[in-house]
Amino acid sequence: MVRVGIINVTGYAGAELARLLYVHPEARLVSVSGRSAAGKGLAEVFPHLACYDLTIGEELGDVEFAFSALPHAASAEAVAPLVRAGVPVVDISADFRLRDPQEYAQWYGLNHPAPELLSRAAYGLTELNREAVRSSRLIANPGCYPESALLALAPAVKEGIIGPDVIIDSKSGVSGAGRTVDLAYHFAEANESVSAYGLSGHRHLPEIVQELTAMWPGAGIPEASRPKVTFTPHLIPMTRGILSTCYAPLATGAVSSSEEARDLYREFYKGEPFVRLVDLPPATKQVSGSNVCLVHPTVDPRTERLIVVSAIDNLVKGAAGQAIQNMNAMLGLPETAGLESPAVYP
Amino acid sequence: MVRVGIINVTGYAGAELARLLYVHPEARLVSVSGRSAAGKGLAEVFPHLACYDLTIGEELGDVEFAFSALPHAASAEAVAPLVRAGVPVVDISADFRLRDPQEYAQWYGLNHPAPELLSRAAYGLTELNREAVRSSRLIANPGCYPESALLALAPAVKEGIIGPDVIIDSKSGVSGAGRTVDLAYHFAEANESVSAYGLSGHRHLPEIVQELTAMWPGAGIPEASRPKVTFTPHLIPMTRGILSTCYAPLATGAVSSSEEARDLYREFYKGEPFVRLVDLPPATKQVSGSNVCLVHPTVDPRTERLIVVSAIDNLVKGAAGQAIQNMNAMLGLPETAGLESPAVYP
Amino acid sequence: MVRVGIINVTGYAGAELARLLYVHPEARLVSVSGRSAAGKGLAEVFPHLACYDLTIGEELGDVEFAFSALPHAASAEAVAPLVRAGVPVVDISADFRLRDPQEYAQWYGLNHPAPELLSRAAYGLTELNREAVRSSRLIANPGCYPESALLALAPAVKEGIIGPDVIIDSKSGVSGAGRTVDLAYHFAEANESVSAYGLSGHRHLPEIVQELTAMWPGAGIPEASRPKVTFTPHLIPMTRGILSTCYAPLATGAVSSSEEARDLYREFYKGEPFVRLVDLPPATKQVSGSNVCLVHPTVDPRTERLIVVSAIDNLVKGAAGQAIQNMNAMLGLPETAGLESPAVYP
Amino acid sequence: MVRVGIINVTGYAGAELARLLYVHPEARLVSVSGRSAAGKGLAEVFPHLACYDLTIGEELGDVEFAFSALPHAASAEAVAPLVRAGVPVVDISADFRLRDPQEYAQWYGLNHPAPELLSRAAYGLTELNREAVRSSRLIANPGCYPESALLALAPAVKEGIIGPDVIIDSKSGVSGAGRTVDLAYHFAEANESVSAYGLSGHRHLPEIVQELTAMWPGAGIPEASRPKVTFTPHLIPMTRGILSTCYAPLATGAVSSSEEARDLYREFYKGEPFVRLVDLPPATKQVSGSNVCLVHPTVDPRTERLIVVSAIDNLVKGAAGQAIQNMNAMLGLPETAGLESPAVYP
Repeated sequence: MVRVGIINVTGYAGAELARLLYVHPEARLVSVSGRSAAGKGLAEVFPHLACYDLTIGEELGDVEFAFSALPHAASAEAVAPLVRAGVPVVDISADFRLRDPQEYAQWYGLNHPAPELLSRAAYGLTELNREAVRSSRLIANPGCYPESALLALAPAVKEGIIGPDVIIDSKSGVSGAGRTVDLAYHFAEANESVSAYGLSGHRHLPEIVQELTAMWPGAGIPEASRPKVTFTPHLIPMTRGILSTCYAPLATGAVSSSEEARDLYREFYKGEPFVRLVDLPPATKQVSGSNVCLVHPTVDPRTERLIVVSAIDNLVKGAAGQAIQNMNAMLGLPETAGLESPAVYP
Repeated sequence: MVRVGIINVTGYAGAELARLLYVHPEARLVSVSGRSAAGKGLAEVFPHLACYDLTIGEELGDVEFAFSALPHAASAEAVAPLVRAGVPVVDISADFRLRDPQEYAQWYGLNHPAPELLSRAAYGLTELNREAVRSSRLIANPGCYPESALLALAPAVKEGIIGPDVIIDSKSGVSGAGRTVDLAYHFAEANESVSAYGLSGHRHLPEIVQELTAMWPGAGIPEASRPKVTFTPHLIPMTRGILSTCYAPLATGAVSSSEEARDLYREFYKGEPFVRLVDLPPATKQVSGSNVCLVHPTVDPRTERLIVVSAIDNLVKGAAGQAIQNMNAMLGLPETAGLESPAVYP
Repeated sequence: MVRVGIINVTGYAGAELARLLYVHPEARLVSVSGRSAAGKGLAEVFPHLACYDLTIGEELGDVEFAFSALPHAASAEAVAPLVRAGVPVVDISADFRLRDPQEYAQWYGLNHPAPELLSRAAYGLTELNREAVRSSRLIANPGCYPESALLALAPAVKEGIIGPDVIIDSKSGVSGAGRTVDLAYHFAEANESVSAYGLSGHRHLPEIVQELTAMWPGAGIPEASRPKVTFTPHLIPMTRGILSTCYAPLATGAVSSSEEARDLYREFYKGEPFVRLVDLPPATKQVSGSNVCLVHPTVDPRTERLIVVSAIDNLVKGAAGQAIQNMNAMLGLPETAGLESPAVYP
Repeated sequence: MVRVGIINVTGYAGAELARLLYVHPEARLVSVSGRSAAGKGLAEVFPHLACYDLTIGEELGDVEFAFSALPHAASAEAVAPLVRAGVPVVDISADFRLRDPQEYAQWYGLNHPAPELLSRAAYGLTELNREAVRSSRLIANPGCYPESALLALAPAVKEGIIGPDVIIDSKSGVSGAGRTVDLAYHFAEANESVSAYGLSGHRHLPEIVQELTAMWPGAGIPEASRPKVTFTPHLIPMTRGILSTCYAPLATGAVSSSEEARDLYREFYKGEPFVRLVDLPPATKQVSGSNVCLVHPTVDPRTERLIVVSAIDNLVKGAAGQAIQNMNAMLGLPETAGLESPAVYP
């Protein structure tokens, strides 16, 4: 059993890591830290985790593997000494996602706390970057929105069937905003309402652009041919789940029917345990609590567009489940270890 | 007081008409019909309408103005004799929205029951078609999705600031599906879930295309220049509300900032009592129960796209409220009569 | 038109007062105050109130009638000078509900700021205290839970058909907690969950006991015969509404069937515009946005208990609507003025 | 691995059994049946169960253990031949819960299809009836409401600290109504609403009375001393969960504080893996997806009442989880096998 720790267990992603690790056959959660809650029992903060007899510490104890669920900046600071000490880490924060520290500074408003580690980090979208994940000791776990968008778009991009005008319209449950109190997330405000946000630029946009550009056919593509991505997140009145509806023009003669698109996607994800092609539009409820991503590409022949809908649980495939999948890959375990429970439905 | 009737009061649109008419200063609901519920009291079917002492009839009694909230086909059949008898009618069904009976046949799967009336019907999006509404005795009340999309896009289209690649991503509450029982609308299925539907073509698409094409600059535009519209409706876990997020490429040099777009829109809708430009992304909760449409255009300078978000209550501005606004226009009343109550928030 | 002001318009009760007053035929909202939001436009804080062109002030301007929606203690302080100046006031806070300042001190943890006004205040449950309301210039608007419980129990108590072992199990939407942010009201915490709270004593309990005791048959009843009330509030995942389920033992031979109980209640509330007896269990949705209280008494012959279920909108009949009803009564207007709009359903 | 089958997998309880069995270390689901869906793949009906490669049959195939999730009457008919053939069965329907076939006929409106099996069935509330469950081959799995009420009340009843005037006020999510479509469960009707139902007698009442009477101190108690139980179920707008708030008068001098009551309860449930005493009022969200029941007794010293709040997931501890716990007990497995996953929170 690998002795595992969670830095900042007190947010939703941290708690979700603890939930999933409890049934992991090869890992054991032995240490959790949290700042304001240090000294409290884990079960006191999270009654659903009363199965654990752990006290939240100021710092992590002795562990063989660490997850960081700290906010950005604080995470890089906490993770850096662990990485230097040889402890493999999956960082759930945004700190190691953008490879360019200047872009980090631009979007996050501060200088990167550990730029020297950026080159050692692998982007942890396991399905698309498996070899790098396996050989790295520091994983940048993807953002929840990029996770849903990249799994939806990767086959189309890599197979060259779409042009660069990409629009991603995402709908997220409120847990994506974290456990911080704010009037916008007050039940009476968020319930029975839907709204767009981040229209002037959400921090997940550069991450999506970076990854789409990297996989775009023709390395070193000129500026003019790079994907032109618009990403609009929406807040919808549910707790868990992200549905991303992605639009892109079909390359001439690329595919001519939804069936053809589906076949191409199915081939692309063949053998992947957590990505499933579906013939009907997916619902986020079908993946709630599970690490599965459902993908549904269709072709709109009238407008010659590809429309791909993907559904994930933002706290599992979009955070804690993806992180454990990365841990499994790093440790040479079956990627499905501890992640086999079906979705909780309805 | 105008004596008003509602054909098929037993659906959500019918009930909403009754709710709104109760406080209308110039109209009085005197007759309601419904098929399966005929013979029951209105208050028996809808306890919230106990303020009325009306019995649901098989047929409408003697009225001076009629609303039809029947399903398509049945509505045209019921409305035709009224129109012929000179009773002004607002039809909430889809029957008189598409001007081309062949297109109707294609999308609705049957021949139009009263094609001879099509030319007499005005499309009842009052803000965009006021004069025709005022002079017509038969109004095709817009579909809820088209209402939200057209109010969002009309200024951009008419002012010629966007190109034809239009994408409309709409999010609707479940009441849009009507009062019919279906597993998809079972609370346990629809709650905590979001999904796309109608990907192979929703019936509101031809209505949107027809109206956008009609207002596109350059009458009689050739096929190749016509708007290429993709419309994707989504079901989200709330009762009322539609948020439409609309994307289109900016025409070269058209507008260069969100402020400029907002000014253009504000000018376009100047004096409209029910369309309000907002500087922050709107939430459907801000219009719940009211006839207001909030519109928020922004420019994405990175991708040179216009993104417009609109919010309505699907049962009010998307159905019953718009219908009463049309009635007011037809009768020469102030358009706001009976529609002045602010949204019910939170 | 009576010139009306709202002190502390920035909470849910204050905003709801503004919403309802907008369609009041005899009153006009001319001044609103709020502390943290002073200087902002009302429409900036509440986009749904953009119909008003009012700026939130530090203090109320010149008004002929005032509502206070301040928290307790602050409310009495703000209201006292108005009352002394002869301005009639409806106080939505708890400050003038308990007639005994010692009980106030015990439950609210501070000395009453204006005990000399207590004797001048009338308890504003209009249906049960109409004459006092009409002749008073200071109204203590009932708490939302007491409103629902007292309307459910008053006929049984006054007609002497129940014994003193009263249990009130109430279910409230989250807006009852106000607009204050707190982890307990975070959407992700409150959604898909129900819990009891206030088990060791909710502040609405002494108010319920005071009013039930006052109406209990046999004035000056000895301690042992006084009602023994247990009140348990619950938080449920909806925005608006309170359903109270009240249990009490039937007095021997009092009533023997649900029909008999319903007749007795119907007679009791005869002519009341806002209390309606219903033959089927009511749902809070049937009163959402309206000032109606639905009451449904039943007899459980197996256990010889009376069970009464009542449904209100906590922000309307439980706060702002009741306050306007009180204003109407004080000013000699029809009690229904401005409160005639049916519930917003669904 | 025990080869397990589920009769009528197509309802929520059946699907939940399949979900939970997928991670059971000692049981393997090998056969599922369903009536209308026979011939379809399990994954076609339930996309979240795509992990299974099973086709829904008309009849169950060869199994060593069976669960029946059929409706009452149909269940007894399907179960009888299995029981006679020696296959151990947990019946999730109501068919074997009431020991008296006349009472069954009275509440369910038909003669019991297999009265001769009634004496062989054990009531499967494992915590309260463990020995009988272990030695029986036919288990009547408790109703969801009785499960929550009996776990809340058993310690108080068995320790003799309460009198017979018991009131149970239960709040249930909509999945408790099953997967049948009905206007009452339409999202637009059930959302943002709460209502009581079954006021004239819910079918779970006789089950609660039977079990409370059986555990009441003093066997063969006379009619007059038997528990007088009022049970009121409520429908609240969430998918999963039951919160039961139970009220009973304290026996004179029995316990005098909440702490004392909590100690008594804690002692009673010592060592039980699935019942946990909590010091704060529980929320159903804390047990969502898990087999845990949270229990919180308090004493109201003013009224000398015991108030006990319990929280379960109606589909797990209230149905499928309890059924698997019973299977574990019957097969001599650890009761927690397959049921160890913490609740899915938030």
